[in-house]
Amino acid sequence: MSRTENAYDPKTVKLLTFHDAIAAFQDGADTPRDYLERCLETIGQREPEIQAFVVTNVDGAREAADDSTARYKANRPLSLVDGMPACIKDLFETADMPTQMNSPVYEGWQSHRDAAHVYALRKGGAAVVGKTVTTEFGQATPGPTRNPFDTTRTPGGSSSGTSAAVGAAMVPAGTGSQVRGSIQRPAGYCGNYALKPTFGALNRGGGHSMSPSQSVLGTHAGSLEDCWRTAFHISSTIGGDAGHPGLFGEAVLAGSVKPACLARLETRGWPETEGETKEIFERFIAELRAQGVEVVSRGDDKRIESLERALETIPDFMFDIFAYEMRWPTWGYRDRGRALLSEAILERLERGEKLSPGDYRDRLDRREELRRVFAALDGSFDGYLTLSAKGPPPVGMAVGDPVYGDMSSCLGSPAYNLPLLADRGLPMGIQLLGHPHRDYELALRGKWLVETFLGATVPSIG
Amino acid sequence: MSRTENAYDPKTVKLLTFHDAIAAFQDGADTPRDYLERCLETIGQREPEIQAFVVTNVDGAREAADDSTARYKANRPLSLVDGMPACIKDLFETADMPTQMNSPVYEGWQSHRDAAHVYALRKGGAAVVGKTVTTEFGQATPGPTRNPFDTTRTPGGSSSGTSAAVGAAMVPAGTGSQVRGSIQRPAGYCGNYALKPTFGALNRGGGHSMSPSQSVLGTHAGSLEDCWRTAFHISSTIGGDAGHPGLFGEAVLAGSVKPACLARLETRGWPETEGETKEIFERFIAELRAQGVEVVSRGDDKRIESLERALETIPDFMFDIFAYEMRWPTWGYRDRGRALLSEAILERLERGEKLSPGDYRDRLDRREELRRVFAALDGSFDGYLTLSAKGPPPVGMAVGDPVYGDMSSCLGSPAYNLPLLADRGLPMGIQLLGHPHRDYELALRGKWLVETFLGATVPSIG
Repeated sequence: MSRTENAYDPKTVKLLTFHDAIAAFQDGADTPRDYLERCLETIGQREPEIQAFVVTNVDGAREAADDSTARYKANRPLSLVDGMPACIKDLFETADMPTQMNSPVYEGWQSHRDAAHVYALRKGGAAVVGKTVTTEFGQATPGPTRNPFDTTRTPGGSSSGTSAAVGAAMVPAGTGSQVRGSIQRPAGYCGNYALKPTFGALNRGGGHSMSPSQSVLGTHAGSLEDCWRTAFHISSTIGGDAGHPGLFGEAVLAGSVKPACLARLETRGWPETEGETKEIFERFIAELRAQGVEVVSRGDDKRIESLERALETIPDFMFDIFAYEMRWPTWGYRDRGRALLSEAILERLERGEKLSPGDYRDRLDRREELRRVFAALDGSFDGYLTLSAKGPPPVGMAVGDPVYGDMSSCLGSPAYNLPLLADRGLPMGIQLLGHPHRDYELALRGKWLVETFLGATVPSIG
Repeated sequence: MSRTENAYDPKTVKLLTFHDAIAAFQDGADTPRDYLERCLETIGQREPEIQAFVVTNVDGAREAADDSTARYKANRPLSLVDGMPACIKDLFETADMPTQMNSPVYEGWQSHRDAAHVYALRKGGAAVVGKTVTTEFGQATPGPTRNPFDTTRTPGGSSSGTSAAVGAAMVPAGTGSQVRGSIQRPAGYCGNYALKPTFGALNRGGGHSMSPSQSVLGTHAGSLEDCWRTAFHISSTIGGDAGHPGLFGEAVLAGSVKPACLARLETRGWPETEGETKEIFERFIAELRAQGVEVVSRGDDKRIESLERALETIPDFMFDIFAYEMRWPTWGYRDRGRALLSEAILERLERGEKLSPGDYRDRLDRREELRRVFAALDGSFDGYLTLSAKGPPPVGMAVGDPVYGDMSSCLGSPAYNLPLLADRGLPMGIQLLGHPHRDYELALRGKWLVETFLGATVPSIG
């Protein structure tokens, strides 16, 4: 069932959507159980090749879908995600399935509880289908997952399994997480809509990150609407991280808003980006301008030039922050045997051991300095555009370069992947980034981009 | 072995100190193993009555002490806590002992890892003796622990076991945690030195708090020096919470510093404080003034009056923040059966269910407003003084009123309990509070207070 024979086209690719199935559940033309069975059929067909899942709980999902079916029959759905099949990145705990993080340290490990967002999804009636492959602790050794649009290629990582499952239309939505580009890049490679939200906007409880000050929980889906609704459901049900205000906005995207002015950023990614990919991006920018959207860049606006220069400082702090924060609990894993960790993880641990508390404070200060530069631009643009990756998903298992993901993580900013383009017959994502806590406003602009480039029919309110 | 027959006197009470044992380890007159055996002897004598421990690992502690003994012989101790017997509050995970949180939900539950601070202590060579009793999830139902100075009375809570173990001279140091007064109050009741540090200063990884934006890990000890050294060792080894700068200062208290001017605060606690306790506090303030320390209060200084008024707003946000943040994972525990939770926890869950994300944001904003009022005073005073509790530890199992603990938690401030006084033959603690990140400077002032009131002989640098 490889699709290598068919070039990917974002306008015709079949992704699963859930929000538009609800009407049929309500009028009885469809049921959550039937919806799930169609997902399971696709999983049955494609999973042997794609290997998105570490483990599934089909019986549990069917039970949840049956309960949901009964609720729709009684006209009493629990939430906007009631009956939605979803997959969970295997860095987050589930009471009914093991949580193994693609590491021998956690082989067969079973938590006694659901992670916060899993709890919220189930409480809303979602049918959790299974746990999806991550790279080792969301960082290093890749899992076995293949890109659904060319199984010789990587799906990206670390949210490999969720991205591949959504891209292969196995499920309409799932969860991922990001320290660098672990949501953005695989979503780009696998043609997902994805939200890497404002730092702290979705409760990470029961998740395992090696760099908690830089990580977020996010959502992947076959549509922007489902991507948003899933994230909003999680935050409004179980909160953001403690001490954070959670996701602002409405439960449903109210409409699309045409952006007046967007900033186009190079970041450290552009000089390394493949020539053909650059050309496609330039055509995209030209088309945006033809649509009447002002697009400014470092050459046009000194403020953007200042931001670009500030973004160049990211390697001066980001990797050290990571290396410092990972010491616990990873030192303890190393104590049990170096063979339990990949060389990449071991090297980062050693980097971290050389850092003093003063070094760490210095790196945090540098991050704050970048955030101050960015905050000064709040209100100036309707969003910031970059690529989601430097080119098409590479052949082989290596998960690709996360360079375009650094910015949103270091700024604590929301960023969407919008699967608007194709590059040599494979998905090519656009990253739409905004200021912290503007996830919702940004989604409305993203919706306009989707409608404009992919011809969706939702009426614009812009 | 109850001490009810002997009135408590802070000048003569025998608490264990560790920092001053190191010289004897180095010259061979004493060993960590012998030090531990003396602790175990005291535990053997007093634990049946006091019940500070949920579980111990005596073999593990002896092994750690023997390893430490060998290191001192080789003149290669690992850290300033090498060989120190310590106890761990049972809200924090340990790989060698269960973590049960005084809740049937966690009965027999065993983590596969050490919490961050436990890892740091063991890495520094400390001998972890056991897990100490907490109230249910650090909040509700008390455990069986008794006050070491009158076993008909409470040790306070939620850090009941650690406070009692330190107060009974079973161990020289241990860990606690606080959302409201869970370090400060039991330390006061049990005559401990204790540090409730700046929010985020000690890594809470592997701990379980119901209100993560308001909780901290802290230290209890038989001396201010050990209290500080233990905290500093944890933070400098394994960091503070991710994204926080950790504990500032030096590994060892450099000396004592006489405070020039201290603010005396009433807070919501004073009107509820017992008359005799008030009188003792007034005499303490008078003695401070006699020593040449300026002490100002709301009647003397409009800025303090403003702070006092701002502190009165605490009930407008603190309990709602708690109730909102506890939803995960506590909702999941309730799903397994309401009988698994106390009525107090169930009531708070219900309170939290009525709160919207907007309500929570409003409460966070109110907390920020209080913090702004406090921050405006930074640099004005050398510290803030209150009581640690409203009176002596109550008779019975109820753990007492945490009202004097609210302030430090809501401000994210450091606060020490200094066991300087006695009230009707029982310990009476003074709370010395400061501005965030000034934990170390505050300790130097605290040291002066200890020397001045208890006659320690360390030379002053003030």
